[in-house]
Amino acid sequence: MMRSRLSHMADTIRLSDVSDMEPAGDGEEVVQCDLADEAAVHDLVKDCDGIVHFGGVSVEQPFDPICAANIRGVYNIYEAARAHGMPRILFASSNHTIGYYTQDQHLGVDDPMKPDGLYGVSKCFGEAMASMYHSKFGQETAIVRIGSCFPEPKNHRMLATWFSPDDFVALIECVFRASRIGCPIVWGVSDNEEQWWDNSAARFLGWRPKDSSARFRDKVDAEHKRPPADDPNAVYQGGAFTAEPIHRD
Amino acid sequence: MMRSRLSHMADTIRLSDVSDMEPAGDGEEVVQCDLADEAAVHDLVKDCDGIVHFGGVSVEQPFDPICAANIRGVYNIYEAARAHGMPRILFASSNHTIGYYTQDQHLGVDDPMKPDGLYGVSKCFGEAMASMYHSKFGQETAIVRIGSCFPEPKNHRMLATWFSPDDFVALIECVFRASRIGCPIVWGVSDNEEQWWDNSAARFLGWRPKDSSARFRDKVDAEHKRPPADDPNAVYQGGAFTAEPIHRD
Amino acid sequence: MMRSRLSHMADTIRLSDVSDMEPAGDGEEVVQCDLADEAAVHDLVKDCDGIVHFGGVSVEQPFDPICAANIRGVYNIYEAARAHGMPRILFASSNHTIGYYTQDQHLGVDDPMKPDGLYGVSKCFGEAMASMYHSKFGQETAIVRIGSCFPEPKNHRMLATWFSPDDFVALIECVFRASRIGCPIVWGVSDNEEQWWDNSAARFLGWRPKDSSARFRDKVDAEHKRPPADDPNAVYQGGAFTAEPIHRD
Amino acid sequence: MMRSRLSHMADTIRLSDVSDMEPAGDGEEVVQCDLADEAAVHDLVKDCDGIVHFGGVSVEQPFDPICAANIRGVYNIYEAARAHGMPRILFASSNHTIGYYTQDQHLGVDDPMKPDGLYGVSKCFGEAMASMYHSKFGQETAIVRIGSCFPEPKNHRMLATWFSPDDFVALIECVFRASRIGCPIVWGVSDNEEQWWDNSAARFLGWRPKDSSARFRDKVDAEHKRPPADDPNAVYQGGAFTAEPIHRD
Amino acid sequence: MMRSRLSHMADTIRLSDVSDMEPAGDGEEVVQCDLADEAAVHDLVKDCDGIVHFGGVSVEQPFDPICAANIRGVYNIYEAARAHGMPRILFASSNHTIGYYTQDQHLGVDDPMKPDGLYGVSKCFGEAMASMYHSKFGQETAIVRIGSCFPEPKNHRMLATWFSPDDFVALIECVFRASRIGCPIVWGVSDNEEQWWDNSAARFLGWRPKDSSARFRDKVDAEHKRPPADDPNAVYQGGAFTAEPIHRD
Amino acid sequence: MMRSRLSHMADTIRLSDVSDMEPAGDGEEVVQCDLADEAAVHDLVKDCDGIVHFGGVSVEQPFDPICAANIRGVYNIYEAARAHGMPRILFASSNHTIGYYTQDQHLGVDDPMKPDGLYGVSKCFGEAMASMYHSKFGQETAIVRIGSCFPEPKNHRMLATWFSPDDFVALIECVFRASRIGCPIVWGVSDNEEQWWDNSAARFLGWRPKDSSARFRDKVDAEHKRPPADDPNAVYQGGAFTAEPIHRD
Repeated sequence: MMRSRLSHMADTIRLSDVSDMEPAGDGEEVVQCDLADEAAVHDLVKDCDGIVHFGGVSVEQPFDPICAANIRGVYNIYEAARAHGMPRILFASSNHTIGYYTQDQHLGVDDPMKPDGLYGVSKCFGEAMASMYHSKFGQETAIVRIGSCFPEPKNHRMLATWFSPDDFVALIECVFRASRIGCPIVWGVSDNEEQWWDNSAARFLGWRPKDSSARFRDKVDAEHKRPPADDPNAVYQGGAFTAEPIHRD
Repeated sequence: MMRSRLSHMADTIRLSDVSDMEPAGDGEEVVQCDLADEAAVHDLVKDCDGIVHFGGVSVEQPFDPICAANIRGVYNIYEAARAHGMPRILFASSNHTIGYYTQDQHLGVDDPMKPDGLYGVSKCFGEAMASMYHSKFGQETAIVRIGSCFPEPKNHRMLATWFSPDDFVALIECVFRASRIGCPIVWGVSDNEEQWWDNSAARFLGWRPKDSSARFRDKVDAEHKRPPADDPNAVYQGGAFTAEPIHRD
Repeated sequence: MMRSRLSHMADTIRLSDVSDMEPAGDGEEVVQCDLADEAAVHDLVKDCDGIVHFGGVSVEQPFDPICAANIRGVYNIYEAARAHGMPRILFASSNHTIGYYTQDQHLGVDDPMKPDGLYGVSKCFGEAMASMYHSKFGQETAIVRIGSCFPEPKNHRMLATWFSPDDFVALIECVFRASRIGCPIVWGVSDNEEQWWDNSAARFLGWRPKDSSARFRDKVDAEHKRPPADDPNAVYQGGAFTAEPIHRD
Repeated sequence: MMRSRLSHMADTIRLSDVSDMEPAGDGEEVVQCDLADEAAVHDLVKDCDGIVHFGGVSVEQPFDPICAANIRGVYNIYEAARAHGMPRILFASSNHTIGYYTQDQHLGVDDPMKPDGLYGVSKCFGEAMASMYHSKFGQETAIVRIGSCFPEPKNHRMLATWFSPDDFVALIECVFRASRIGCPIVWGVSDNEEQWWDNSAARFLGWRPKDSSARFRDKVDAEHKRPPADDPNAVYQGGAFTAEPIHRD
Repeated sequence: MMRSRLSHMADTIRLSDVSDMEPAGDGEEVVQCDLADEAAVHDLVKDCDGIVHFGGVSVEQPFDPICAANIRGVYNIYEAARAHGMPRILFASSNHTIGYYTQDQHLGVDDPMKPDGLYGVSKCFGEAMASMYHSKFGQETAIVRIGSCFPEPKNHRMLATWFSPDDFVALIECVFRASRIGCPIVWGVSDNEEQWWDNSAARFLGWRPKDSSARFRDKVDAEHKRPPADDPNAVYQGGAFTAEPIHRD
Repeated sequence: MMRSRLSHMADTIRLSDVSDMEPAGDGEEVVQCDLADEAAVHDLVKDCDGIVHFGGVSVEQPFDPICAANIRGVYNIYEAARAHGMPRILFASSNHTIGYYTQDQHLGVDDPMKPDGLYGVSKCFGEAMASMYHSKFGQETAIVRIGSCFPEPKNHRMLATWFSPDDFVALIECVFRASRIGCPIVWGVSDNEEQWWDNSAARFLGWRPKDSSARFRDKVDAEHKRPPADDPNAVYQGGAFTAEPIHRD
């Protein structure tokens, strides 16, 4: 979804996935890469001026794949960046780092984490790694706690968490435009009517979301029943992830 | 150091290390165990009424041993506890989760983490894991951010961070005495004259440290020069850990 | 003022007042009811899917009528709701719960109450009752601290406190639309240029006021002199209520 | 329990209860009085230099007696004080104004109330009344949120909430000694090892509790089983009050 | 720049500078005045209904001129105002009172000052003076911490700090329109996309900035290189002032 | 009072006053110096390893002497320190920087200043100067907001503000003992029963006051009437200073 939207931001976009990808188009390089493979990650990062790190596991899975991609993978990315000039990183963190807060709580970026599963815990790890590389080496990272980045909200919870692709692209532009960003946490969410998260700490980046989920409200209402009051999708910010078990395999 | 001090707290103490240990004495079981070995950890945890988890790497090391013992090892401990009745856990976290705060900052338990190395990052991971198992399953953990637990303070920084073994034992007693603890963070530090950390959030446990590093001040002054003002031991709460590189092997 | 504006929200609106009301129209039931009459309140609440509780005394009065309508009356409403399926309640609280804050103070919902008379104290009581029924039974209430709900602002203070009827209706819709609301406090105020109250804690409801008192500024200026600097209408958020005596009869 | 302890604080102590009391001793007056009887309360308050208001219902009861003694009674006390020179009042509020906080939460005096029953709600009302009379008339009140004032702690929860009679007397002395107190909230609790409440906002009164429940710990352990983890006495600050129903008669 | 924009706000505008000024136009008086000259300042202030105090040194200079104009000058202004009916004052303070905060910090008005030079220190002095005259005498001052008030932003930092002259005029109107303002601190900054400062505490004034620096972004990008990451203009809120030495003459 | 108490802290103590002083004893140098005389201050500071800056005006006076000693004098001290190796400074600030807070308020070091006269404003200036020299040059200062440093408390207010000379000496020892202090604010007050100020932010210095005014309570009660409730000594933290006029000469 992002592939075509980022092409204007660089002469060459190096794309990577652990799986097969569509062939490189103009201004693209395509690199298949397992994030747990240190040497491969170093090759991937080499010569990059900036890194948008969406890689890794993004749903609840067993510990092994999460550990490989989101723990070891993040270590590999940061070591590779350190070896190759410390290009600025946008790290795709997640609302699942705070998924066990209830939906009637209003959070700032300094509230303690409350991850809602192994995936959320791995993102807490990634945020800690970003913080440490910033303190120790000056490596800059924008930690973006993504809500729900889809073309449109797919259920009632996403009326609050929807992050439009256009707003995300605008954020990426701000992150790589600034002279200096430090290591901020940014809530990756559009200007929806429902709001759980206070982004004022990230306002120095100059980013203001412009989309709102409101125009999809009728469609969501038509296609989905409102969840009952005790449904994880109505109780917790992390929604259904809070109801996931620990996947044993 | 703790082995003899905990014997009064249970009929049987099951001791474990990855290395060889002295043979079991009265009321002791000795189990050699690699924390990265899931089956071994399940055996270790089975039938325990409570877990004091001091295991794992406790200094800055390369990623592989830290990942094995402190990442995978913590996952193994929590899964083993979940499989075996969820005995209460005391998790030895560390001041290195917040090591990049300067020594003139006064911290509460809700201040954001600032780990000072891979070891500190692994402890942030452990704290996130404890939080998640508490939210999802009700597993209780006392997260103890240990300062410097030695018979006596070994340098000037430790005048602030010293955690006397007696105070630690008293904290362990409080943790396992209470009807219900939830998942609190406790600063593991004695009642030293220098104080960086506010423990009021943990006062519900009924623990009050009784020792102070003050009686060792003259000895420390006699044996060590005060660090210069720009020495990591004078600047950062994490001390020399902040000056450690990433160990590559 | 609200009667006609709520008709689209239910098949039947049951209206109630202690005084005579205009006869029921289409989709209306009219029930005369003294809130201090427990049995009458139970009949009133029975079979309701939701309760918009505007009843009771809304100005400074002697203790007896306030106690009857706003103390006993609130108890009766909550007991009746508990007996009849706990329909969600919108409770009309008031800025007079915090009326003794000065107008240059910016308040969140967690700031301590500072009621400005017996009426304000009775609303503090109502908020405490709502909190207790939520904690004990799960009864949900939206506590709306109404500013000045009139067709238009009637003096200079109301340029800050004006709550347009349309914005109020939109809030009511949000309150009864959500799957789960808990027991939030919402400042009932439009998007006026002057703002004393921070509504971010209620943003999860998806309500955003759209009106502003600004379009009435010239009219207010033309019809009223600005209050002098030591006038209660210029000093306190509660305005003239702070200057009211205790009414003895 | 307090009767004999207060005799040194005034030439004459006027004692009052709704029930029969033991006859007046030296320096005592005894006045039987129903707090809901306005004229009687005015007579009771007349000529007093200070009021220690322990009267009213102090346990969970039906609404009618609570309303009579703790709602109307408080109104009567404040109106009587206003009519008779506004003698300083010590108002016995209660931890049941915040009883639904869990025992692992550390509270300041500005945290929102969370009453645990009709009794707790009536004490929230009393605190609001005290605040209003202070703002409107300058009437001073020390609002003392009493923990558990008994000769000794009677169960495990009271190890945290115990308020020794001696500490209470010392607090009363401080309250009536100061030139000016305003309208502070004070946690009425001794210097127990377990602490849920932060009294720093009341330190200007010069009161420091000297007793600790620790010397009763062994006795409590011997006489009572620790409550299970899900027992209201282990979960909530208000203890068993949270498990009380609404008493209907 | 402001001279023509304020003419509608009073029948007569009395303008003053230490240097020669253009002759008085309609509705203007022109008074040359050295702020360090107490008698001259008293004459200047006499008969004014309001004071917009932009006078003094506004850049980093040696101590003597700053002390004369911004220290002694401010004392003279406040004493003159006290002698002449205490007309409301708008005091032009500066972002250089907090210039050593980094640009990724989000400030409220209560954050401690961090001045970035003698000029900033003199403005801290002025704010303290305003506070004292308010507490002691009721003198009202709007303390406006001006960002960068120019026709348009002149470099990248000013995209965040730009305060459009129109927004400033609108703020002045609000300040002198209100019945009562007390002694608030207001961040003097437009509604730019980049935001470092939270103005919610000043919202009671009814002022909302309407301009944004965004329309000048392309022009700034065309005319200036982005500052490098370690340039004071990229690091500190006070920008280049932080790199100024103490001017010795 | 301090002269004899500091002799053990250095081989040579250089003492200075604007007035005549007693001749130098062993290990003393005596230098008469007007703080407004820049050259003299440079001579005074030269070769010092540390500066305890008690100089200047310490009561409410007209602007001219305060400006000379406390404004220009502070500038001179900091410039002299910068020219001579930046010896650590202990700056005697004052509770009169926050004198208009009422005595029932509990302050941290980050609460905004509220000076109570020209003297207090000059101390705010000094604190701002200390902050600026720390940010710009790394000059370290311990800003000590002295309560009432006398051999014993002289009135009822001083039961709260008393700072025993012994506690002050102990603080000075801690300030000059530490490897690195930064620029902290410390409340200069003993461990009195009445407490208005929270010193936890300064606990990293290792200083704990040991004296208490309590042993003088009976004496104060015997010699002084308690101030009435509306006396500045009962209302404001700054006491009688708040009732001082601006001294015109």
